[in-house]
Amino acid sequence: MTNLNSTENVGLVPRSDAAAVSGLDFLRHLLDGSYPRPPFSKETDIWPIAVEAGHVTFEALPSARFYNPMGIVHGGWIATLLDTAMGCAVHSSLAPGQSFVTLEMKTVFVRPVLEKTGKLTCEGTLLHAGGRVASSEGRIYDGQGKLIAHGSETCLIMDTNGGHR
Amino acid sequence: MTNLNSTENVGLVPRSDAAAVSGLDFLRHLLDGSYPRPPFSKETDIWPIAVEAGHVTFEALPSARFYNPMGIVHGGWIATLLDTAMGCAVHSSLAPGQSFVTLEMKTVFVRPVLEKTGKLTCEGTLLHAGGRVASSEGRIYDGQGKLIAHGSETCLIMDTNGGHR
Amino acid sequence: MTNLNSTENVGLVPRSDAAAVSGLDFLRHLLDGSYPRPPFSKETDIWPIAVEAGHVTFEALPSARFYNPMGIVHGGWIATLLDTAMGCAVHSSLAPGQSFVTLEMKTVFVRPVLEKTGKLTCEGTLLHAGGRVASSEGRIYDGQGKLIAHGSETCLIMDTNGGHR
Amino acid sequence: MTNLNSTENVGLVPRSDAAAVSGLDFLRHLLDGSYPRPPFSKETDIWPIAVEAGHVTFEALPSARFYNPMGIVHGGWIATLLDTAMGCAVHSSLAPGQSFVTLEMKTVFVRPVLEKTGKLTCEGTLLHAGGRVASSEGRIYDGQGKLIAHGSETCLIMDTNGGHR
Repeated sequence: MTNLNSTENVGLVPRSDAAAVSGLDFLRHLLDGSYPRPPFSKETDIWPIAVEAGHVTFEALPSARFYNPMGIVHGGWIATLLDTAMGCAVHSSLAPGQSFVTLEMKTVFVRPVLEKTGKLTCEGTLLHAGGRVASSEGRIYDGQGKLIAHGSETCLIMDTNGGHR
Repeated sequence: MTNLNSTENVGLVPRSDAAAVSGLDFLRHLLDGSYPRPPFSKETDIWPIAVEAGHVTFEALPSARFYNPMGIVHGGWIATLLDTAMGCAVHSSLAPGQSFVTLEMKTVFVRPVLEKTGKLTCEGTLLHAGGRVASSEGRIYDGQGKLIAHGSETCLIMDTNGGHR
Repeated sequence: MTNLNSTENVGLVPRSDAAAVSGLDFLRHLLDGSYPRPPFSKETDIWPIAVEAGHVTFEALPSARFYNPMGIVHGGWIATLLDTAMGCAVHSSLAPGQSFVTLEMKTVFVRPVLEKTGKLTCEGTLLHAGGRVASSEGRIYDGQGKLIAHGSETCLIMDTNGGHR
Repeated sequence: MTNLNSTENVGLVPRSDAAAVSGLDFLRHLLDGSYPRPPFSKETDIWPIAVEAGHVTFEALPSARFYNPMGIVHGGWIATLLDTAMGCAVHSSLAPGQSFVTLEMKTVFVRPVLEKTGKLTCEGTLLHAGGRVASSEGRIYDGQGKLIAHGSETCLIMDTNGGHR
């Protein structure tokens, strides 16, 4: 199976639930289907395949639906995949009661992506988890292991009551 | 009219056509419907409203379809909007026979976006157009003129025969 | 006078003083010589010429002292100039008791710089000043008004007692 | 010996020489003293300690000479160190007759640097070497192995006759 099937549950995670669990448990619940699949994930054909503390792996299926006028997958879809993995790498480091917002990200486009490129893999890795700020990097590979894109992002860490860890 | 209607023509621009016209004419043809609406544009609800040499304006409609698990529009959608405007700002500077690829982009997220945020405006502005490299910046505003995100990108300029301007 | 003379006072701003004044007053004291010239400023030949809320202007003199092995001014010196202006643009927005740290910056190099390029001007402009995060942009021009480099950065805002505004 | 001594030869590499050797040989000649130490290197206390194809290591000594008004090493010095290593990682992949220019770089500041922080190590690693564009990443560590900063950059590759590889 290269993608999640269409009959699954799509929706949001209850806010009270999000605050009660660690980031790693949150991601595990998304991975095992305990939480509904987020809407963007279905729209963009991006889904997690592995999560651990500080490192996450996503797969994604490029589609002609994302083509720009020249018939190449839009760079924004590539940025979406990277942001997903880099944000979740930060998320995986959070304690219960913490949350994060992404402040900025950089995307470097190495190779063009077409529908025929086929399924991509994206690795997100935590580089630093500080009290108020965290940063991570991400890399996208095709099925032959060729680098498609890479990036980095910085996130602000908050307690769900508005403070900072 | 806040969005393009659903009965429109969606597709790619013929490659021979893309090479024959200036970047500005290319964008004008997209704007006036002479060229089909690109697939990503329909998927992401992003569309141009004004193009001139070195400056383009897009509008976009945030949707719950793009929500992440926490019920906020995915940063990747914001990056897609910025990349669209910043890339087209570079495109608007190209002569017939030239094309470009985006090398990298940075996105700074200033305010969260919800479906209720409503229609956004994104300005893309050319900062430098060199013989081989060009750079641009972009800014997204909400309906009240509040800054939602900003960014910059660098592009490689090529002659469609493989050379460089 | 294109540069500050060598007999001036070089040193740091007393920490108690830094906490007591607004960012704008802090920068004005640097500009008018009430505060000593910071050490980096002397080492790199970078100095302020105008400060207002949200906008600062620096001048800088490229030197063969900063040349890389190929005889071009090192990109790091250009980044130093941009960071100085972009950081001070954020600083200019701070109330007494607040401080900031720069989280990240991007530098885009548009044209090479030589000693003979002569004095450069760098403008730093605040783009967003939020409660915990601020972002700014910067642009470097040569004496003919040609764009030399541009960039952006994001900063974390803190109360000097450790909290956030 | 933690730094190069002050009696050494400081200067530029002859242009004809730079074009005749591979990037790796160029860097080896800088490392073993066959080429003069570049001026910026002496000004900033940054020097190479190891070079191989796609990976270079530099050391650097933070100094109060680089302090900003608050008594912290200026972020521009950190960016200079990163740019040095990331640029040389790209340089190490070039064939004789090729050269490069850095298009842009991003620097993420993780921990503040003081003079007492002591000697830093910076690793530059090639991520992609294409025909016209290359990208690399860099990481700075202190003597205890703590991450001080990280970054990435993209470079344009040229033949010294003006073409592209």
